[in-house]
Amino acid sequence: MTPILHLARGTISMCVQAALEEANLPHRLHWVDFAAGQQRAPDYLAVNPKGRVPALVTDRGVLTETPALLEWIAGIATPRLMPSDPWLAARVRETMSYLASTVHVAHAHKMRGSRWADDPGARDAMRDKVTSNIADCAAYLDAQLDGDWVGRAFGVADLYLWNVACWFPGDGVPLDPFPRLHAHHDRVAARPAVARVIALHTAD
Amino acid sequence: MTPILHLARGTISMCVQAALEEANLPHRLHWVDFAAGQQRAPDYLAVNPKGRVPALVTDRGVLTETPALLEWIAGIATPRLMPSDPWLAARVRETMSYLASTVHVAHAHKMRGSRWADDPGARDAMRDKVTSNIADCAAYLDAQLDGDWVGRAFGVADLYLWNVACWFPGDGVPLDPFPRLHAHHDRVAARPAVARVIALHTAD
Ligand SMILES: N[C@@H](CCC(=O)N[C@@H](CS)C(=O)NCC(=O)O)C(=O)O
Ligand SMILES: N[C@@H](CCC(=O)N[C@@H](CS)C(=O)NCC(=O)O)C(=O)O
Repeated sequence: MTPILHLARGTISMCVQAALEEANLPHRLHWVDFAAGQQRAPDYLAVNPKGRVPALVTDRGVLTETPALLEWIAGIATPRLMPSDPWLAARVRETMSYLASTVHVAHAHKMRGSRWADDPGARDAMRDKVTSNIADCAAYLDAQLDGDWVGRAFGVADLYLWNVACWFPGDGVPLDPFPRLHAHHDRVAARPAVARVIALHTAD
Repeated sequence: MTPILHLARGTISMCVQAALEEANLPHRLHWVDFAAGQQRAPDYLAVNPKGRVPALVTDRGVLTETPALLEWIAGIATPRLMPSDPWLAARVRETMSYLASTVHVAHAHKMRGSRWADDPGARDAMRDKVTSNIADCAAYLDAQLDGDWVGRAFGVADLYLWNVACWFPGDGVPLDPFPRLHAHHDRVAARPAVARVIALHTAD
């Protein structure tokens, strides 16, 4: 069967879609409408009981979690989209883990505070801290970048970093003060596969 | 040089230490005293600017982020502590990413709420939701386990799951109602390498 990517507009599923496009892997898209709460509907929970995107339905089963999806796609792509050297691969995984567990999580405290507190006042307090947390993340990521790409060559971690950085301006953190991050962002966005994904996520 | 693991008592660095022990890799330990705030001292920030443990200092540089560290150790261990089949490896990475980005983060809202909100009342509200979030995570993890180990054979993801589940009872979620998770926890804790780590983290 052709794999089916479950995705939603503007979310972290963009980078997985971009990885499929970069790798030229045939796939179908199933859009999940967050405004309509479809991620919590029983038919979607049967795909991904966590109620999140992305999720990829394959012959072998359903795979979730952005770092795992990206690395799986990287491994079947030609050329591979992860370094083959174990140490460089470890450094790329370090960045992907930081994006997943710190940067994405810091961003999620703006709109998804109800995951971590029921009190509306607490959610306001979380929202108030998003800009300073994301600014710290941007500074760290900018300092880490020491070439054109996260690894030595272009790879899936670049798509992941690009996707997460798309949210920074809306979180109150423009990219201009972070020259390496900014240049990286433009470099990734200029790739034809990524441009196709952007067009689909911004169309009316 | 012999790699140096920077670690702190009872933290997520336990599973990285256990992976080094399982793999019989020579290493030295550098304990970071959280009670004394050493993770924010300049000499530690020079090792890991994120001010967190674990961090491993190697010949090639410093590596951080638990999933990246575990997989790097898995790759140099004999036998390897990750599946070689790409799909099974992807499933193991899926679990590790969920542990890092959802379960560990849910737990951190108990004692580290100041990361995400400055208001003390908001931090109380976050603390109030930890038990129900961790109970949801435990139910998901229990449902996912369908054999003795996270992958087909014992591997680093088992150490990671064990480490995170050590926190569940203290978060108000005893393991008894989750029979597969409970049995997995006991199975990992019974390994000699893990027992050595537990002894070091619980000694006076
Ligand atoms: N750890 C997951 C997180 C996925 C995630 O949180 N996705 C968001 C979109 S960016 C989502 O599905 N949110 C729906 C909701 O919270 O209801 C990953 O990295 O894939
Ligand atoms: N994403 C990191 C998180 C590491 C982390 O948060 N470690 C905690 C201990 S469990 C820490 O160092 N906390 C110190 C602090 O917050 O000051 C990883 O998975 O390694």
